[in-house]
Amino acid sequence: MDNQLEWQKVRSERGPDLGILNVRFDWLKHPTEDRTLKRLVLESVDWINVVALTEDGRSVMVEQYRFGSGSCTLETPGGMVDAGETPLQAAQRELKEETGYSGGRWESLGAVQPNPAIHSHLCHHFLAEGVTKNDSQDLGQGEAIAVHLYTIDQVRSAIVDGSLRHVLAISALSRVFDLWTLPFVETKTPAD
Amino acid sequence: MDNQLEWQKVRSERGPDLGILNVRFDWLKHPTEDRTLKRLVLESVDWINVVALTEDGRSVMVEQYRFGSGSCTLETPGGMVDAGETPLQAAQRELKEETGYSGGRWESLGAVQPNPAIHSHLCHHFLAEGVTKNDSQDLGQGEAIAVHLYTIDQVRSAIVDGSLRHVLAISALSRVFDLWTLPFVETKTPAD
Repeated sequence: MDNQLEWQKVRSERGPDLGILNVRFDWLKHPTEDRTLKRLVLESVDWINVVALTEDGRSVMVEQYRFGSGSCTLETPGGMVDAGETPLQAAQRELKEETGYSGGRWESLGAVQPNPAIHSHLCHHFLAEGVTKNDSQDLGQGEAIAVHLYTIDQVRSAIVDGSLRHVLAISALSRVFDLWTLPFVETKTPAD
Repeated sequence: MDNQLEWQKVRSERGPDLGILNVRFDWLKHPTEDRTLKRLVLESVDWINVVALTEDGRSVMVEQYRFGSGSCTLETPGGMVDAGETPLQAAQRELKEETGYSGGRWESLGAVQPNPAIHSHLCHHFLAEGVTKNDSQDLGQGEAIAVHLYTIDQVRSAIVDGSLRHVLAISALSRVFDLWTLPFVETKTPAD
């Protein structure tokens, strides 16, 4: 790491416990200047999501009310990695719980940082090809989820019309499908 | 919105003020079952980032220590929308402050939800073509940033070698460049 960029941690302090996130405050010394700043870190377990394709190439999508945005979203199935699970195991569990789909051929699509400015965790993307519906949904207390099978053209339309805007879902899908013509230009919201 | 999916907000309560984020707790009633759950919402202003290209097609990238991940990251320039600014104005200001580059032809690349499960805000992506270095950096107290010009091949390599993992940066870049061969398969971390 570049010595001109690396902040030195002076001390850490626990902040409030927010349930799925733990707050930590770090005091860090500027790499080249004589000052120390307090910074927020949101600690959590890693997240996962999966592009799950049926044998005919349709993507298993979930629609649900999201408490952060206060709106219904269209996403790829996903969730958090439970204690003792690998990311792959978590992805297979979440797909089955949220949609009833399972099986197929799985591979990793890599991992991304959702926001390294404040979040410590990664989101791991997976591809599952040839999944089939073998079970009913097995939803948690906080979940109400509709399952849809989308063709690639329907995924593209959902991005353009704004119903699919969750960056972690789009990130996973963009590693499997050509999602738009480049450069993508926003058709609904002109630069303001 | 589907009535089988829409949770009804019963009440809200302010949580701790975390500086760049405000915590809110909402109590919501399940759409079809008789239970009410407490949920976390992290409120913030919107964020922006920009794919800024020089006339010879190189992308202006920033390298900086990130407090959330505790590591240096490679990203597109970006930041938060200040009070009274449009997203476009914020993007033009952040590019100039972080890199000294400005000018060029700007357009919106749309907006994404960083994580609608817990975050309320959007991240607006922009493309600026033909930017030039007209000023020195003008960094905030909490910033130490190195500026690099990356060709598209260097951007691709940085994604494959893991030095570029910030999903909001990759999301913006993916709307301008073909970033990988589809399907992208993780070469460093096999499915585990």
